[in-house]
Amino acid sequence: MDVLLVGSIAYDSVTSPAGKVEQALGGSATYGGLASAFHTKRLGSGTVGLVGVVGEDFADTDRQTLATHGTDLTGIETAPGETFRWEGAYHGSMAEAETHATHLNVFEHFQPKVPDHAKTPKVTFCANLHPALQASVLDQTKPQRLSMLDSMNLWITIAKEPLLEVMQRVDLLIINDGEVRMLAEDQNLIRAAQTVRSMTNVPTLIVKRGEHGVLAFHGEEIIALPAFPIADVCDPTGCGDTFAGTLAAYIASGEGALERTELRSALVAATVSASFTLQSFGTEALRNMSVDSFNERVAQFEGMLN
Amino acid sequence: MDVLLVGSIAYDSVTSPAGKVEQALGGSATYGGLASAFHTKRLGSGTVGLVGVVGEDFADTDRQTLATHGTDLTGIETAPGETFRWEGAYHGSMAEAETHATHLNVFEHFQPKVPDHAKTPKVTFCANLHPALQASVLDQTKPQRLSMLDSMNLWITIAKEPLLEVMQRVDLLIINDGEVRMLAEDQNLIRAAQTVRSMTNVPTLIVKRGEHGVLAFHGEEIIALPAFPIADVCDPTGCGDTFAGTLAAYIASGEGALERTELRSALVAATVSASFTLQSFGTEALRNMSVDSFNERVAQFEGMLN
Repeated sequence: MDVLLVGSIAYDSVTSPAGKVEQALGGSATYGGLASAFHTKRLGSGTVGLVGVVGEDFADTDRQTLATHGTDLTGIETAPGETFRWEGAYHGSMAEAETHATHLNVFEHFQPKVPDHAKTPKVTFCANLHPALQASVLDQTKPQRLSMLDSMNLWITIAKEPLLEVMQRVDLLIINDGEVRMLAEDQNLIRAAQTVRSMTNVPTLIVKRGEHGVLAFHGEEIIALPAFPIADVCDPTGCGDTFAGTLAAYIASGEGALERTELRSALVAATVSASFTLQSFGTEALRNMSVDSFNERVAQFEGMLN
Repeated sequence: MDVLLVGSIAYDSVTSPAGKVEQALGGSATYGGLASAFHTKRLGSGTVGLVGVVGEDFADTDRQTLATHGTDLTGIETAPGETFRWEGAYHGSMAEAETHATHLNVFEHFQPKVPDHAKTPKVTFCANLHPALQASVLDQTKPQRLSMLDSMNLWITIAKEPLLEVMQRVDLLIINDGEVRMLAEDQNLIRAAQTVRSMTNVPTLIVKRGEHGVLAFHGEEIIALPAFPIADVCDPTGCGDTFAGTLAAYIASGEGALERTELRSALVAATVSASFTLQSFGTEALRNMSVDSFNERVAQFEGMLN
């Protein structure tokens, strides 16, 4: 298996200046899984396993969406109750979501179980989820190349200790600029990133900055990239997960120690993939991304940098 | 003359999380002029003329600082009264200054007079100043290559019409992301930049984004660059002026239509120069920038991108 990904599967209701959507298929495992599946297929074998939970209300059509795009759903449990739901809104520059409601539902009692055939993936990716659940998936897997972890401000607030513990167990940490500042309790992003690295001893720290791009600290090196400029921003939900899922797929396609040039290619692909997610509500634009449209945008992006 | 620059000369009192400074030599002409002089010297003839006004309290040592760094002060008038003063503070991530006081002093009745030998510079650069004064300098000069203009949110608020008029007269506009959003009345930066371009018909729009880098719209092309990451941020005052002054110097060193590759080199140099200004209160770090330290940081920056 290329990528084993644990995360949320959700129904999202989102309002933005571009309109709104009700109960769209979302969640970190959905966006991350679709992005990983797209890129692992492009780059090689194309096996992405998801671990998560849905409720009895989870639509067959949504299951099929995930399956036909190439994710292995063996690790998705169906539990009594309703699927996780998130409601939120974006205003102004849409830099941050305002959460209106979070209904954990089936996630409240979820215990991830990694299927046997998924226990030695190339990459274990713990997408945003309670740190205890992320730790359980790290316990159950033995990644052949690398383990990576995403998180969110909520866990820094309510579960900082277990979060820092699980962060210390992974090879690559991918969080956003606000979370880096919050963890380090320092408003200077560069200094805060240095602090997070020494708090966690993580070899690679990727700082997602939304519309401002990405900063990666890898060993002694720094990679800085802007975002892909998008005029018709629709909904930022899932952009960070798309970014991380793409990164996981790229890393799964290589061998040995993670090289700088390899990481840069992965970050460019992640930046471009996230720019598609930004252009629709839900997963529509990500699902419709073609290899040609992806390659074209990568060339445009490199053209903007050089 | 390479660059003719009109702007403010000020005494700035600034507080930031790194400390404070009282009555430091500052202003858009000071930062822009020092940066332009450094780079025109590196790149060729090194003639940068300043147009502005100081009061009778302006210190000889400050005049000498400007002169020994290579700016021509013939166009600096000494008027009865006090030099322009600005007091402000930066908090948190230091993204925006909080203005505590602005004393226009001698600027209240200033009428810029461009000396005869400065009337046909390669580049006329109207640094941040009241749009009517910028227009007067455009009236008096005939730039051999290009005219460029910077501004600030204050003029959008109190002098939007004259500002839009003078913007329509220049070849290159360099403003920050907040100003672009404000002018276009649109929170989406990319769309807002497109609107500003159609409002002004400006061939080249440079959007400064502070710690998030720069976006340049040049003809049909886009250049996107991150900022140079700095951990020991001291005082962002003058970074935008340093950026623009560097750009002016680079453009003054070339001929004919502005090429994309040339603009990109200029933007990299501007990004790196501004990163020096960020590291001290006032002009100290900019004045101490050496050709070697500049070149070294350019190489580091290109290394982060590629």
